[in-house]
Amino acid sequence: MSLSPSDRLQRLADLAVGLGANVQPGQVVGVTAALGHEELVRAIARSAYKAGAKYVDPNYFDYHVKHARIAYAAEDTLDWVPPWFGERMLAHDALGAARISLTGPTVPGLFDDVDPKRAGRDQLPFVKEVPVVIDRQNMNWTVVPCPGPAWAQLVYPDLPVAEALERLWQAVEHVCRLDTADPIAAWRDRAAQLQRNAATLTGLQLDRLHFAGPGTDLTVGLLPTSSWLAAGATTKSGIRHLANLPTEEVFATPDPLRTEGIVRATKPLVNGGAVIRDLVVRFEQGRAVQIDASSGAEVLRGRAALDEGACRLGEVALVDRESRIGKLDTVFYETLLDENAASHIALGGGFPFGVQEGDRDRVNQSGIHIDFMIGADDVDVTGFTQDGRELPLLRGGAWQI
Amino acid sequence: MSLSPSDRLQRLADLAVGLGANVQPGQVVGVTAALGHEELVRAIARSAYKAGAKYVDPNYFDYHVKHARIAYAAEDTLDWVPPWFGERMLAHDALGAARISLTGPTVPGLFDDVDPKRAGRDQLPFVKEVPVVIDRQNMNWTVVPCPGPAWAQLVYPDLPVAEALERLWQAVEHVCRLDTADPIAAWRDRAAQLQRNAATLTGLQLDRLHFAGPGTDLTVGLLPTSSWLAAGATTKSGIRHLANLPTEEVFATPDPLRTEGIVRATKPLVNGGAVIRDLVVRFEQGRAVQIDASSGAEVLRGRAALDEGACRLGEVALVDRESRIGKLDTVFYETLLDENAASHIALGGGFPFGVQEGDRDRVNQSGIHIDFMIGADDVDVTGFTQDGRELPLLRGGAWQI
Repeated sequence: MSLSPSDRLQRLADLAVGLGANVQPGQVVGVTAALGHEELVRAIARSAYKAGAKYVDPNYFDYHVKHARIAYAAEDTLDWVPPWFGERMLAHDALGAARISLTGPTVPGLFDDVDPKRAGRDQLPFVKEVPVVIDRQNMNWTVVPCPGPAWAQLVYPDLPVAEALERLWQAVEHVCRLDTADPIAAWRDRAAQLQRNAATLTGLQLDRLHFAGPGTDLTVGLLPTSSWLAAGATTKSGIRHLANLPTEEVFATPDPLRTEGIVRATKPLVNGGAVIRDLVVRFEQGRAVQIDASSGAEVLRGRAALDEGACRLGEVALVDRESRIGKLDTVFYETLLDENAASHIALGGGFPFGVQEGDRDRVNQSGIHIDFMIGADDVDVTGFTQDGRELPLLRGGAWQI
Repeated sequence: MSLSPSDRLQRLADLAVGLGANVQPGQVVGVTAALGHEELVRAIARSAYKAGAKYVDPNYFDYHVKHARIAYAAEDTLDWVPPWFGERMLAHDALGAARISLTGPTVPGLFDDVDPKRAGRDQLPFVKEVPVVIDRQNMNWTVVPCPGPAWAQLVYPDLPVAEALERLWQAVEHVCRLDTADPIAAWRDRAAQLQRNAATLTGLQLDRLHFAGPGTDLTVGLLPTSSWLAAGATTKSGIRHLANLPTEEVFATPDPLRTEGIVRATKPLVNGGAVIRDLVVRFEQGRAVQIDASSGAEVLRGRAALDEGACRLGEVALVDRESRIGKLDTVFYETLLDENAASHIALGGGFPFGVQEGDRDRVNQSGIHIDFMIGADDVDVTGFTQDGRELPLLRGGAWQI
């Protein structure tokens, strides 16, 4: 099945609106994007208005303007955050809006020529209200990938740009299951499967995980009431939504005080326009005490120094090799896809809804949430249960449960 | 003197920042633009940060998303205005920010296929807070033109697009005096000249103006304490700024109850993406009671029905034939340039700062302000003074004062 460029754009938009955010008649729909994402934003607007949206509110971020700031603004102004960014998000929250965020690098390398310490002081477009409104669960939201020429050239540097873009679109079509007869039905099946895996893991009552592989010897403690979650969330008002499209992960909430050892990232990480390669992080008593990389280390160090929780874990996620993304064996330089290709951990804030009431205050809190990939076929994952059993979870990338 | 594309872009940005808005160190700078204006926004950001701006806050409007709304949204939602649009503007006002707005059509004809009555219900990106914050005079602001390919093709439809764009840029360079050795000094001279004309007109103590020409026989009464203003404003905190670049007009505040007769627009008007051609408006006791046009009449009728003041005048402005814009004898389909080529009037809100205290409540109030051009070499403008004298003001487009 082959889709025309306008067909696949509209199918991706319809999936984001119809299943991902699950836009309801009468809702405001916030669309968060970067310049370069215009075509998909407009297809989403058409789809959302046809679904009965009251107002589609696109918000385009311009990384070139951010670059000018980091290059020229006074040092002591760089961490100033315009209050209206967060206020707009809180206004969406108060209205019970739907939200659709587009990802996909648009300006790779743009920040290579600026001082990474200065760059680290400006977290925008991320604002501290993001984890706040996620935790409130008033909004049905999703994150979807938006293919574009700059991203395509990053992923397929040896191809001419038109060919690279075509190939990236085909990959996105495949991993988003747009190449199935009914993408929404296909995702409902896949989500049910992931949720069964999550339920099995929750039933094991794990105390901690251990990752062992080349350069990696890491223990991640879990909070006692941590559940494993997957594919799908529900707002307080009862609207189902798929927060990430695609999604292939099951994830749980670490104890922010019990990460120990060393871990080598298995894929590059794109953050704030910088590419962080060959990342190695050492943890002591939950804290990332050493962050090294062959490029971009300063950017991550800057972000991990943002607040008390920024150097501790907020998420641990397992992904097996059967994921459609993992099978492509492609580095996408985009967390949304890469995190669903491999097991990963995230520095920064966790999800209070992932634990029971008594553990809520123990979930890590931070203004950041940065996933990085630590899984691969040669990284074994082993679980240790609360009652002392040792269970292989992933071997050669395959589930053992 | 010929400028390279990047030179002229940066010169225009530097003029907007250095003279138009007159950005001060430590200021937030709001930049209002449409998609298609990115390059100038970014040049402005560089210039503003170099001038010491604290934060440059671009806000891009996407007319394609608006088009989707008008095409598909429920009728009764079309006049809903997201509160965060106005709140962001009020936040800028509270901070005493600078503001730079870019104009220049980016999507001519986009709205030709929608129901003009539906289109008329959605005034965005205009919000009612615009005249409120202008009246408060806390912000130093300017409006500058932003050349682009779609606009160039509208102005020069017979040229290939690259050539049309080059020609539009040359016109903008000329009318913005970027082709002088020191554009800021050139504008200071020109502004002084316009202010002398305004002072002379104020000294005449005019009661009303009369416009007479082909299809036009219009009397515009002025408020008793109306001053003539030109080129330049000052914030309450004392920052000088040039609200329009270019500017060639002197303007005054009409009595909203005393416009009488019929007027034929001498140039097309672009409003909300629609081109309004061959506009004829008839006034009775200050109200526009009939609005006709060969295209786009519905759009203007919709806007003139927005509120009580939307069908009355808020501004009358005189422009002589010596303006650099007038001499080009080109229709730019953009009010900022066209209004400075010809005398004009505006439906909607007036400027309370244009009259003395006792007349403030009599200035027209409205959520709209739409200028349209009524002057030409064959339109005579005559003044009638408060003490009963009749004085020719413009004959053959030349000042008689």
